[in-house]
Amino acid sequence: MINRLVSEIKKKNAPIVVGLDPTLKLIPDFIKEKHFKEKGNTLDAVADAIMEYNTGLVDAVCDLVPAVKPQIAMYEQFGIPGLIAFKETVDYCKKKGLVVIGDIKRGDIGSTSEAYAVGHLSGVTVNGTKLTGFDEDFVTVNPYLGTDGIKPFIDVCRTEKKGIFVLVKTSNPSSGEFQDRICDGKPLYELVADKVREWGEDLCGDSYSYVGAVVGATYPEMGAALRKVMPKSYILVPGYGAQGGTAKDLKPFFNEDGLGAIVNSSRGIIGAYKQEKYSRFGETGFADAARQAVLDMQADINSIF
Amino acid sequence: MINRLVSEIKKKNAPIVVGLDPTLKLIPDFIKEKHFKEKGNTLDAVADAIMEYNTGLVDAVCDLVPAVKPQIAMYEQFGIPGLIAFKETVDYCKKKGLVVIGDIKRGDIGSTSEAYAVGHLSGVTVNGTKLTGFDEDFVTVNPYLGTDGIKPFIDVCRTEKKGIFVLVKTSNPSSGEFQDRICDGKPLYELVADKVREWGEDLCGDSYSYVGAVVGATYPEMGAALRKVMPKSYILVPGYGAQGGTAKDLKPFFNEDGLGAIVNSSRGIIGAYKQEKYSRFGETGFADAARQAVLDMQADINSIF
Repeated sequence: MINRLVSEIKKKNAPIVVGLDPTLKLIPDFIKEKHFKEKGNTLDAVADAIMEYNTGLVDAVCDLVPAVKPQIAMYEQFGIPGLIAFKETVDYCKKKGLVVIGDIKRGDIGSTSEAYAVGHLSGVTVNGTKLTGFDEDFVTVNPYLGTDGIKPFIDVCRTEKKGIFVLVKTSNPSSGEFQDRICDGKPLYELVADKVREWGEDLCGDSYSYVGAVVGATYPEMGAALRKVMPKSYILVPGYGAQGGTAKDLKPFFNEDGLGAIVNSSRGIIGAYKQEKYSRFGETGFADAARQAVLDMQADINSIF
Repeated sequence: MINRLVSEIKKKNAPIVVGLDPTLKLIPDFIKEKHFKEKGNTLDAVADAIMEYNTGLVDAVCDLVPAVKPQIAMYEQFGIPGLIAFKETVDYCKKKGLVVIGDIKRGDIGSTSEAYAVGHLSGVTVNGTKLTGFDEDFVTVNPYLGTDGIKPFIDVCRTEKKGIFVLVKTSNPSSGEFQDRICDGKPLYELVADKVREWGEDLCGDSYSYVGAVVGATYPEMGAALRKVMPKSYILVPGYGAQGGTAKDLKPFFNEDGLGAIVNSSRGIIGAYKQEKYSRFGETGFADAARQAVLDMQADINSIF
């Protein structure tokens, strides 16, 4: 799957992943009103609204970007109907040819991580029949529990040729509270990055490993250091746009070949229609606004090479 | 909710939480066969089997223990039907008067943690109507992202009078890989524990804080140190039984008053019928075997005081 991600990034000339993080605030009113009218103020109505919003967005950008990253929390908050919308979004995006990164940030002791890994990347075997719970191509994983919390994901990735992105240095303001602590002469995030390199060493695609890392655009200097620590790991870079990261902050995350990083934007794209800059599209033009925001982001990122 | 948890522990004289972690291996064959016959080899059949297993277990132990801890991964691996079984299990346990600790180990940047917090502890407001996704009393939370990944959970706990258990030192063999690293003169787990104390300081019930911690029974010396660092935090202690922790390992986790810790056992109770010791109950007596295992665990733990 890492090979496919890299080849799609090259083909579309867009190291961009669109964060499909629907919130009630972002979904256009005309969509919400329609579904509330149909199904009342219910979670089912919200799920239908999410699907109409997401499919509109995906249809508008699927020829431009290689990948999408639905953040499962934004669906899980709406309970079972929300999680059905998550599953349908994953399936719809795959049908449209997109690589799907499930932003699930799971991680637990070994036997429990195994359950998450089969639940999201491979499927479970029930009485001899292989059944699929969720079916993303990549997932994000939390490293706090150490190697035996990660290994079940790696085992599944090896068999299924799928991948993970391990949280190394996150984009949020207080990420440094623990991640930047100096442990045995190195910041904790670098110790995690050392492990990411190790975990991915014998799990390589043509040029990059199945084991990638998450490093926030909001910390470009750390990105530069981490790029060198994990030369074979793709870096998933959140924090561009709404969270404050700019194009020039992104350069250090890429290798010399212009590869090695994929930049996420969520609100900046899916909520573009709410920005002054794209107000000409109006609420009903939310998908066209998103498309324009992707084109602008692409030009912005390509300006750094 | 922490007051209720403490009072139920006292009333039942059992600082015990039963881990409701159904796996296909643990569910008795006669239950699985019945549901596979009814609904084929499907995730719906698995979900029905889980519910029959769980309700049997809960009915057998609900007068003995204060709380249960369903591990969401064990349900999530079965996709949507599995998660419906998770929700139904939570609701059933609450109906039976049990405190429910959702072992979800979520944690993300602020806006995303907020979605998890409302999704599991409070409910979302949809067009003016409050709707509930999942409805646990406590959830477990991963601290790797720092304060702004925890704060949304704390805000919801304050309003809803619910609680969290933050991963401090986990029970798995490789937990030391990052958690034990010495940062600025202290192991990382102790830095996290300092924050747990701080986060819970102004969020106190009658004697304990809404903000608890997870510390594995497999690390009793660290448990002793951490008990002192977070005197007002309840410690949720996994790792007893199947993972190797024994009763004498548990003593350091408790305060002088015999309170301050609640010990989890999952396989050791729900899979008791598979142990030599409880084989007299047979497969169909799985629930009675679980009841006996709880009584034995209670005697074992009470022997340390």
